Amino acid sequence: MPQTDGTPSAFDAATAVRRAEGGGLVADLGPGWDVGGGVLNGGYLLAVAARAAVLDSPHPHPVALSASYLRATAAGPAHLAVTPGPAGRTLAHSTVLLTGEAGPSIAAQVTTATLGSEPAEYTVNAAPEVPAPEDCVVTRTTGAGPAVGLVRRIDTRLDPATAGWTVGRFSDQRVLRSWIRLADGRDPDPLALLLFADALPPTAFAVGRTGWAPTVQLQVLVRALPAPGWCLVESRSTEVAGGWSDEECRIWDATGRLVAQARQLARVAR
Amino acid sequence: MPQTDGTPSAFDAATAVRRAEGGGLVADLGPGWDVGGGVLNGGYLLAVAARAAVLDSPHPHPVALSASYLRATAAGPAHLAVTPGPAGRTLAHSTVLLTGEAGPSIAAQVTTATLGSEPAEYTVNAAPEVPAPEDCVVTRTTGAGPAVGLVRRIDTRLDPATAGWTVGRFSDQRVLRSWIRLADGRDPDPLALLLFADALPPTAFAVGRTGWAPTVQLQVLVRALPAPGWCLVESRSTEVAGGWSDEECRIWDATGRLVAQARQLARVAR
Repeated sequence: MPQTDGTPSAFDAATAVRRAEGGGLVADLGPGWDVGGGVLNGGYLLAVAARAAVLDSPHPHPVALSASYLRATAAGPAHLAVTPGPAGRTLAHSTVLLTGEAGPSIAAQVTTATLGSEPAEYTVNAAPEVPAPEDCVVTRTTGAGPAVGLVRRIDTRLDPATAGWTVGRFSDQRVLRSWIRLADGRDPDPLALLLFADALPPTAFAVGRTGWAPTVQLQVLVRALPAPGWCLVESRSTEVAGGWSDEECRIWDATGRLVAQARQLARVAR
Repeated sequence: MPQTDGTPSAFDAATAVRRAEGGGLVADLGPGWDVGGGVLNGGYLLAVAARAAVLDSPHPHPVALSASYLRATAAGPAHLAVTPGPAGRTLAHSTVLLTGEAGPSIAAQVTTATLGSEPAEYTVNAAPEVPAPEDCVVTRTTGAGPAVGLVRRIDTRLDPATAGWTVGRFSDQRVLRSWIRLADGRDPDPLALLLFADALPPTAFAVGRTGWAPTVQLQVLVRALPAPGWCLVESRSTEVAGGWSDEECRIWDATGRLVAQARQLARVAR
């Protein structure tokens, strides 16, 4: 998806998967997609795995993806092993193992199909009321600290109602809402939604708890093709217990339509 | 987990995984755990896969599981291929492929760890108010029709507020709540929670839409060890669009504590 001015999108370049001589799939994990300390964002890695699954599928869109995060992964060359499952007229399954220089990085179950944008038959996912992006809070803090590549790749505008923590006013609710888009203006598609599903800071930031919360397993369901423009992301932790936290995520497109939902389990400090 | 009278639990017998000569893992998928037409329940199959993962892990409990459902699977002999990922002091990852007589059945990402039952540090998952099991609705309808083995294996008592459909009074909300336990009295544990996460009828039944809704992908997070006794399951569809439906599931134990959460994507008739 080139930009409207014809230049290639940084996201497309950084998630490109190509067939190497011998038939295997390879990628160059981009250095600018980290969440601090050189560790690449989990949603970014999932998008790379999804590209590999789509390359080997008769269907164009990732619709259901679940990944185990095996180790922190840095930029560099990677290869992708796609094990195809049954493929039918409606959908196809595969297992994707993404391996970086340090070893296996993520193992993912991926289902591909053809998504549309017809109206929902039933929904209880009305988009929350959030001020327009220009009236929201620009923050350059995300992930594990300030030295974070991801904040230059995505443009986020926090709902003021969930942005108190950026100025030291902490909430008792682990909820964040933010407009989000790729910083270079590339419009959203199912692959970008995978990135957006893990792009906000940990919801613990909202209550004044910072620190590393590595993703253990992340499921993303892509429910429809997003319209061009901003997406709205809501991330919510519902249960923190025994050193584990969930993060529930819903994403709406610019028309207010639900386009993705996700849940991850992360480790947290006790 | 034998029963209090010393007899073996039907669930434990039907999910048993053993090491065959040569070192591979095998199971005998039980005929009584179907949802109609001889098709085995997805939660039951996930429990078998989890047993295989635990057998090959240093950790005793499945905590995060995501499975792709590759084909409808019938009772009979099966083998399980466990591909271990990194294993550390806190958790271990593996990929499990369960293959039945007709071919690969489910492919699952499984994370194992040691669960506890300490109180939650943060929760917004208060158990819903539901009448006691003896004041709830016994129904023998589940899954795809009346000829269903699963209803003899589990004991369900529907919240009257979500049971109108059993007498032809349909709701406009796709929500079901039910007490649940194994019919032979075996107490819940993380493996039983995997069964319970996919044991209620499709939430479409609540609005008078019956029919087959095959699971495409199911994620279950086990959040704590359940107390003995009944569990309470709430299943909720939030979005039906383009021939796909989600089912959100939360499970509380007899003390009202959240012990599992799950989400599946299913195919539905348009």
